[in-house]
Parts: sequence; C-alpha cells; structure tokens
Amino acid sequence: MNILFFLTPKSEVAYIYEDESLRQALEKMEYHKYSSIPMISRTGRYIGTITEGDMLWGIKNKFNLNLKEAEHVPVTAIPRRMDYLPVKIDSRMEDMLDRALNQNFIPVVDDQKNFIGIITRKEIIKYFYQKMSREGTAKEPEISRYMVV
Amino acid sequence: MNILFFLTPKSEVAYIYEDESLRQALEKMEYHKYSSIPMISRTGRYIGTITEGDMLWGIKNKFNLNLKEAEHVPVTAIPRRMDYLPVKIDSRMEDMLDRALNQNFIPVVDDQKNFIGIITRKEIIKYFYQKMSREGTAKEPEISRYMVV
Repeated sequence: MNILFFLTPKSEVAYIYEDESLRQALEKMEYHKYSSIPMISRTGRYIGTITEGDMLWGIKNKFNLNLKEAEHVPVTAIPRRMDYLPVKIDSRMEDMLDRALNQNFIPVVDDQKNFIGIITRKEIIKYFYQKMSREGTAKEPEISRYMVV
Repeated sequence: MNILFFLTPKSEVAYIYEDESLRQALEKMEYHKYSSIPMISRTGRYIGTITEGDMLWGIKNKFNLNLKEAEHVPVTAIPRRMDYLPVKIDSRMEDMLDRALNQNFIPVVDDQKNFIGIITRKEIIKYFYQKMSREGTAKEPEISRYMVV
C-alpha cells in the first residue's frame, strides 16, 4: 500500500515561508484555523512545523506576558473555538470514530455526564496499525488515489 | 467492539477545573505539554475542552497584543517544541503510521526534500473507518481492555 493514497497535496495545504514575520504567521494561522502549519523555504524545502502552542509559549516569553493579570481572568472567559464533543460510554464505535475525524481526542462521559476519561487519536491509530500488521493488510495491493489521478 | 477498549481513564488524564484562572490553566498546559486539555466542573461533569490555540487567540485579544512588534519578529525566532518529522514519498506504510502516533499530520517530501503535501490523521482514521465498515469488523466480538481490568 502506497502512502501517497493518503496525501493532501501542497496545492491544498496552508503553509508559511520561513522568512515571514511572526505577525504574518499569526494572521495566516488565525485565518485558516489550523492548529499547526508547515513551514517551507522559498525554494520549496520542508523546514519544520509551527503550532499554535509554539506561538503561545513564544509570545508569552517574547512579549513578557504579565501573568499577574492572567490570575484574575477566569479560564472560562477564553472563547473556545471548537469545543470537543464528548461520547457516552455506550456509544457505537462508528460514532466515536466519526468524532475522531475532527477532534484530537474524544472526551468520554458516563450516564450522569461525568467525565471518565478520553480516547486519543493515537490509541485509535495504534490499534489499527497493530491490527493491520497482524493481518498483513499492508502488503495487499490497493489502488492508490495517487495512481488514479 | 466496545469503545472503552480505547479509553485513557480520568486518573491518567490532565484536566483543569472550570473555576481556575487563565494563569493556572496556562501553567498546567505548559507543564503537561498537551495541546488541548479537558475542562471539568468541581462535581466531575465534562464542560468543554480548551486548546493552546484558544489561549493564543484569547490572549492576543484580551492582552491587546501589539502586532506592530510582531512584524519585526521572524517566525523562525519562535522555538518549535516538537518539530514534525517528514516522511519520504516512498516510505513504508508502517513508518508513516508510526509518525502519525505522535504528530497531528505528517509532512511528505520528495527525493530532493521538497515539500509535496501532508498526510493528516483524519485521512488515516477515515480510511480505517471505511475499511472497517466494509469488512463489518465493528461487529466482531473483541476482548476489551475495560473488561479485562
């Protein structure tokens, strides 16, 4: 199986150039609403990936964010762009996987809506990875999206 | 198949309480290095999930971040905590999946290290989801981790 089957081509990907300013990068990320974005050179080489977290911690240090002020801001005052939807413990596998398409993890709640833990994408991919290795599906010939195009 | 098989229980999950301050939340996130963290009530209810991005944009607005200054900061001056490792176009499926365990997407480069696109976890999960639906594996009885414990 060819990994290009899974590729989102550069033409459909938002990226930043390594010689851009923090401001340009911030604006691009805010506009596209991606939590991480690849950085490339003007000649097209992959340089690295910058995340919202890198920017958060970078800004916190570079701009000497006054944490004293942050003490009086309740965390609930921060708008949440995309609230992760939970699944109930008795949800079907399909519904859980459906959530996993759009969230980095899925909060799990019991009947009383108590939070009992999370399901990470990592665990899901790990499961399928191991299942695939056991079944040897990786060796199966498949028509790749790349070959069709 | 029971979704609890995939559960990371609350006892092993970092979370914040909804009545905490922005400062407490920031410190918890910086310490745990998670890009998003569930928020629960003192009675244990799931409230929502806050991401580094929410904090970045919230702080940018709340603290009236001076973007003029950010114009002169090159984006490469921001330290990148965990640089996403790329895969080459001819990588094996196993190596790509291995990367997918720890990165939200995998940059793909050609032989000249040119960036040609990305593989998202969403595409990977979508593929296995569809494959599972086709094969009807979801109905197979499996021993769940939850039942064993």
